[in-house]
Amino acid sequence: MKYKVTFLPDNASVDVDANTNLFKASKAAGVYVLSSCGGKGNCGKCKVIVTKGSVESGKSRSFLTREEVERGYILACLSKVTGDLVVEIPPESRMQAKHKIATGAKTEEIIRLMASAGGCLESRIKRVYLELIPPTLDDSISDYERVRRALDQKGLDASHLHMNYLVLKKLAHTLREKDWKVTVSLFSVGEVLEIMDIFPGDAALTRYGAAVDIGTTTVVVYLVDMTNGNILGTASSYNSQVKCGDDVITRIVYATEKNGLQELQDLAVGNVSAMLRELAQKNNVSAGMIDYIVVAGNTTMMHLFYGINPQYIREEPYIPTATFFPLIRGKHVGFRIDPQAVVYSMPNVASYVGGDITAGVLVSQIHKQDAVSLFIDIGTNGEIVLGNKDWLVTAACSAGPAFEGSGIKFGMRAMEGAIEEVEIDPKTFEVNYRVIGDVKPIGICGSGMIDTLAEMYLTGVIDQKGKIREEIGSKRIRKGESGLEYVLAWRVESAINKEIVITEVDLDNLIRAKAAIYAGFATLLAQMEMRFADVDKVFIAGGFGRYIDVERAITIGLLPDLAVEKFVFLGNTSIMGAYYALLCDRLRHEAEEIAKKMTYLELSVSRNFMDEYLSALFLPHTNLEAFPTVKRELEERKQSV
Amino acid sequence: MKYKVTFLPDNASVDVDANTNLFKASKAAGVYVLSSCGGKGNCGKCKVIVTKGSVESGKSRSFLTREEVERGYILACLSKVTGDLVVEIPPESRMQAKHKIATGAKTEEIIRLMASAGGCLESRIKRVYLELIPPTLDDSISDYERVRRALDQKGLDASHLHMNYLVLKKLAHTLREKDWKVTVSLFSVGEVLEIMDIFPGDAALTRYGAAVDIGTTTVVVYLVDMTNGNILGTASSYNSQVKCGDDVITRIVYATEKNGLQELQDLAVGNVSAMLRELAQKNNVSAGMIDYIVVAGNTTMMHLFYGINPQYIREEPYIPTATFFPLIRGKHVGFRIDPQAVVYSMPNVASYVGGDITAGVLVSQIHKQDAVSLFIDIGTNGEIVLGNKDWLVTAACSAGPAFEGSGIKFGMRAMEGAIEEVEIDPKTFEVNYRVIGDVKPIGICGSGMIDTLAEMYLTGVIDQKGKIREEIGSKRIRKGESGLEYVLAWRVESAINKEIVITEVDLDNLIRAKAAIYAGFATLLAQMEMRFADVDKVFIAGGFGRYIDVERAITIGLLPDLAVEKFVFLGNTSIMGAYYALLCDRLRHEAEEIAKKMTYLELSVSRNFMDEYLSALFLPHTNLEAFPTVKRELEERKQSV
Repeated sequence: MKYKVTFLPDNASVDVDANTNLFKASKAAGVYVLSSCGGKGNCGKCKVIVTKGSVESGKSRSFLTREEVERGYILACLSKVTGDLVVEIPPESRMQAKHKIATGAKTEEIIRLMASAGGCLESRIKRVYLELIPPTLDDSISDYERVRRALDQKGLDASHLHMNYLVLKKLAHTLREKDWKVTVSLFSVGEVLEIMDIFPGDAALTRYGAAVDIGTTTVVVYLVDMTNGNILGTASSYNSQVKCGDDVITRIVYATEKNGLQELQDLAVGNVSAMLRELAQKNNVSAGMIDYIVVAGNTTMMHLFYGINPQYIREEPYIPTATFFPLIRGKHVGFRIDPQAVVYSMPNVASYVGGDITAGVLVSQIHKQDAVSLFIDIGTNGEIVLGNKDWLVTAACSAGPAFEGSGIKFGMRAMEGAIEEVEIDPKTFEVNYRVIGDVKPIGICGSGMIDTLAEMYLTGVIDQKGKIREEIGSKRIRKGESGLEYVLAWRVESAINKEIVITEVDLDNLIRAKAAIYAGFATLLAQMEMRFADVDKVFIAGGFGRYIDVERAITIGLLPDLAVEKFVFLGNTSIMGAYYALLCDRLRHEAEEIAKKMTYLELSVSRNFMDEYLSALFLPHTNLEAFPTVKRELEERKQSV
Repeated sequence: MKYKVTFLPDNASVDVDANTNLFKASKAAGVYVLSSCGGKGNCGKCKVIVTKGSVESGKSRSFLTREEVERGYILACLSKVTGDLVVEIPPESRMQAKHKIATGAKTEEIIRLMASAGGCLESRIKRVYLELIPPTLDDSISDYERVRRALDQKGLDASHLHMNYLVLKKLAHTLREKDWKVTVSLFSVGEVLEIMDIFPGDAALTRYGAAVDIGTTTVVVYLVDMTNGNILGTASSYNSQVKCGDDVITRIVYATEKNGLQELQDLAVGNVSAMLRELAQKNNVSAGMIDYIVVAGNTTMMHLFYGINPQYIREEPYIPTATFFPLIRGKHVGFRIDPQAVVYSMPNVASYVGGDITAGVLVSQIHKQDAVSLFIDIGTNGEIVLGNKDWLVTAACSAGPAFEGSGIKFGMRAMEGAIEEVEIDPKTFEVNYRVIGDVKPIGICGSGMIDTLAEMYLTGVIDQKGKIREEIGSKRIRKGESGLEYVLAWRVESAINKEIVITEVDLDNLIRAKAAIYAGFATLLAQMEMRFADVDKVFIAGGFGRYIDVERAITIGLLPDLAVEKFVFLGNTSIMGAYYALLCDRLRHEAEEIAKKMTYLELSVSRNFMDEYLSALFLPHTNLEAFPTVKRELEERKQSV
C-alpha cells in the first residue's frame, strides 16, 4: 500500500509505503526538516504539523508543549505514515536559505596572508606542454617512451615514469590529435613521476584546483586558477549530512547502520560536487581541467568523505583509520566532474583534532612564533591548540553543538530569523534584540545565546549557576513546561506564533558547553605548566568565531579574561589552509609537519580536565579572581543600581 | 523476425534476427567455426553445410570446389539467416578438442633452468605477517600509522607508505578481525612501499601467482605457489580471439571497428580468467590469494589484453602505445578472480617484437654468452634475435601464419586429425603419413607441411621453385580447380569425405613463408657483418618449434644448414620467461635490461631483406652452396635412382 505525502510550503510530494517513518519520507521528498539526532527521537527538532490526513505518532510529549500538541505539532521521526498526508514544516523546523557561512577572507587578503606565510605558486601538481618529435622508421620508440624522452628534455626526471591506465588507453589518440603537441598533468611521489592526465594541444594555462572545507555543519568550496592563485568563485552550503545528525557522534552512529556510511559519503561528496560543477560552469572551466582538490575537515568528516567506517573513532581508545590519507583519484570518492583529479586531505592529528585544525594552525602561523599562542576553533566541536615554534599541544573539548542550536529549545544556526544580538535593560529587564535579515525572529543563534547569557548574568536575571532568579519579579520570567524560562520575544513579535524563550535547561546546556571549552584551555595550559597570562595571542577561527563578541564571551567565561587586543579573528581558516596547500607545496609540507608535531591530549580521560570543567560550571567561573574584568563590571553595575 | 539456428554436431541453438550473418550467429551460439580472416570472406575457412532450411549466400565460389558446392557447402561469413536453420559444421571447420599446445617444460625442469639462469624466489610482491600492539589511550596512533610502525619494526622502510583506497576502506575492520594480527601483501616502486591488500591473521604462506602466455593462437596459464615456486597446475586453450582473425594484422583491423577492441580484450582476459579460476578451484586457492600475474605476449596481444588501441602498430612507422607497460590492478583489465592482483607484462621491444621474445631470450640466456647465438620463435609471426652478452639485434619476419594453416587449403593447427609427418616413396611417389591422435586425417599441420615440402622436393615431385612436375606421371598429381595439386590422402582415407591435397598455391605460400624467415636470419647476420658459421647455437622456441624436424626444415631452407647439434629446442619460452619474472625480481629486471638492449630492425623497409627474400624463394635457396647437406642428399638420391 502506497500513500502520498505532500510537504508544505515546498509543495513537494512523495509516494511511500504504509508505515514509512515521516522523517524518512521528508528525506525521500528532498525536503529539509531540521534534526540534531538524525531521526532518533532524541532532539525534538523535527517538529511538523499534519494539516490533512492522519499519522500514527509515538510518544514525543517531552519535546512538545501542550500548546504545540494542541496545534497539531508532531515529531516527524516518531511518526508513521498511515494514509495520504499534507504536512506543513513550520519555520522553526526549516533550513533557512539565507545564512551566514564564513567563507574565508577576500582573495587579495588570502593571497597576501599566504605570501606572508612564505607561500608561493608551486603546487605539486603541474602541467607541462610538450611538442613531441613525430615518429619515423628511424625513431620508432613507443608513444610512452616518446613522452618520457620529451619530459627528460624539459629537465624533468622521468626515469621512474608512471602513467595510469586511463592515460595509457587514450595516449596514442591524444598524441596524434593535435599533431604531437600535448599537455600532461604531472605529480611526483618520491622518485616516481606520474602522468595524471593528458590533453591535446596546449592546455598548460587552463589548470584549476579546488580548496574544500567540509565542516560538520557547513561546506565551503573555492575554485582556484592554479596559474595565478586567483579564487574564481566561492560557494558554500550546509552539509547535507546534517539531516543524519548534528554532531560527529550522531553521524558516526548513523554510519554504522545499514547503508549509512554510503549515504553520508554521497551527501558530502554530492555537496562538494554540486558546488564545484556550478562554479566551473560559471567560470567556463571545462571538464578535465580541475587537477587537484585539497579538502580540510575534522577527522570524522574525512572518514565519511572517503567512505571509511568511522566506528572506532567513537570507541575507546578512539582510533581513526588514518590521520594522513593517501592521495586518491576523484572518481574513487565519487567526483564525476573531474574523475582524474587528485584529492588530498589536510593531515589530521587524532580522532578529534582534524585537518581543519592543522589548516588553521598553518594560517595562524603560531607554529613559527617565539611567543606562545592559543588557537581555538569553536565550531560544532571545540578544538584548541597551544604552542609556539618549539611545541604544539592540542585537544578537543567535546563542547557539543549547543552554540549551534543543538539542545537549546529555540536554538538555531546563524541563519535568517535568528536573534544574533541581545541586550537586557538592567532596570526594566526589557529586551532589545537584533535578528539576522531584519525579519521577525524564529529562534536564537550562538552569538545571541552568548549575549543572552551574559546579559542575564550581568543584570541579575540569573545567578552564577545559571538559575533564573524568579524573585526579581519580571513578567518575562515564567514557569514553562520544563521549569523556569525567560521570554526573549513575545508571540506577536515572533514569526512562529509562539514566544521565543530561553529555559533553565537551555542555560544549563550553554554553561556546560562554555565550561568544556574553558576547561580545555586551562588543561592544556596546566599540562605545559603555564598560565593564561603567558599567552601572547588567542586566534579564533571557525564560522562561529567570526560573529561572537569577545567581551560578552569573556563575561560568561567562554573565553579567558585577557586584553581584548590579544584576540585575533581569523574566520574560516580551514578553507584558507586548504587553499594554501593547494597552491603551495611548501606550505602543504608545512601542514604535514604541523600535524606530526602536535601532541594530542585526550581530555575525556583527563582528571585535570574534569576538575577544570567542574570549576567552570559557574558564570564566569568558580574563581572570579580569574576574571578581573567581569568582576569589575559586576561591581560597577552594582554601584550604578 | 527471429529465426532459430541450430549448429551440429554440438546441437547448440540460438535465436537471431532475420538477415543475421551466419558466422556471427555461430559466435552467438558459442560454437567455434574456424576463420582466419575474422569473418570478412577472405580466407574460405568457415565452411559449413546447411542441412535444413535455406540461407542467402554471397559469392564464395573461389573458396569452394564444385563438389563442395554440390554437397551444400557455404561460407558462414558470407551467408545471411533467412529462416530457421540446421547447420552442420564439418570436421575441417571445427576447432578440435584434443590438441598439442606447448605449455613449457616440467616443473622440476623449469625450476632447474631458472636456478641455472641465476634465479631465486625473491619476487617483488611480498607478504608480511604482522602482530600489531593493540592501541590504548596512551598509544592512540591511527590504524595506518600502526601498520607503518609494525613494518618499520620488521626492518622494511615504510617512510613512503602507500595504501590504496580499498585497503584503506577495510583496514579498521581487518585489523580487529583477528585480534590485531594481519598479513599485508606489499610491493615497492622506487621509494614507495605500497600495501596492495590486507588479510586477517596469518596468510603469509598462502600466496600465489600466475604466469600467462597470451599467444596469437594459444593461451597458457600456470598457477604458481609463490612460496616455493611449485607449478600447481597448467592450463591451455586456444586464444578465443582466433574467431576474430588468425593473425595480428587481422586482429588490429578488427580492433579498430565498433566495439572490436573491447571484444578482443574480453576474449583474451576471459580465456585467462576462466583457466585461472579453474586452476584455483582445483587447488583450493581462495579468492584474494593471487597477488601477482605476469603476462607475456607479442606487442599486439598486450595492447589487446590491456584494451589499448593497437591501430598505430599497423600503420607506418609502426608505433606501439607502449613497450613497457606500467603495473596495473587485475580489476582494470577485467580480472574478477583477484581484482587486487598486480599485473605485469613482460617488456616488449617494438611493434612486432614483444614480451614473449624478451621472455624467450631470458630463458635461452643468449644475452649472457660470449658466443653469438640465434633465437627464433616460429609462431604465428616469426621473430628472431641474434646476439651475445654484448649486443642483441632483433627482427620480425612477417612470415604469416602459413605453417599454422592459414592460406593453406587443408592447412590446420597441430590438433587431432592433422597430418604431422609425411614420407614420399621416391620411386612410387606413394605417401606414408602419421596423424595426430591416430585418427583419419582432416588436414595438415605445420610439421606435416615441412615434411611434405621437403619430401616432394627430394623426390622430385616439385622443382626448386615449388612447381609440381606433372611429367613424373603419378596418379597423385592432378589438375584441381586452382591449378595442379598433389593428393596426400585419398577420399576413403580421410575423415572429411574428400581428398586431402596440397596445391601449387599452398606450395607457393609455404615457400614465401620459409623465405621470409630465412631472409630474416640472413639480414640480421649481414647487419652484424657475420655469417651463419659464426652462429654457435640456434634456439628454437614456440609451440610450433617443438614438433618440427630440423633436418627437413633445413631441406626446405627454412632453417640454415648448420650441424643438427647446434639446434636447441626450448619449447614455450614465453610462459617460462613469465614464470621466471613472476618468482624472481632479479630475472624480471634482467628481462627489462634485455628488452632495452635489443636493437630492432624494421625488415619491411629493408632493401637487404628484400634481396635476401627473393633469393630464398627457392628450395632450399638460390644459392645451393649455402646448403651443403641438402646438396649432398640430392646428389646421393640422384645416384641411388
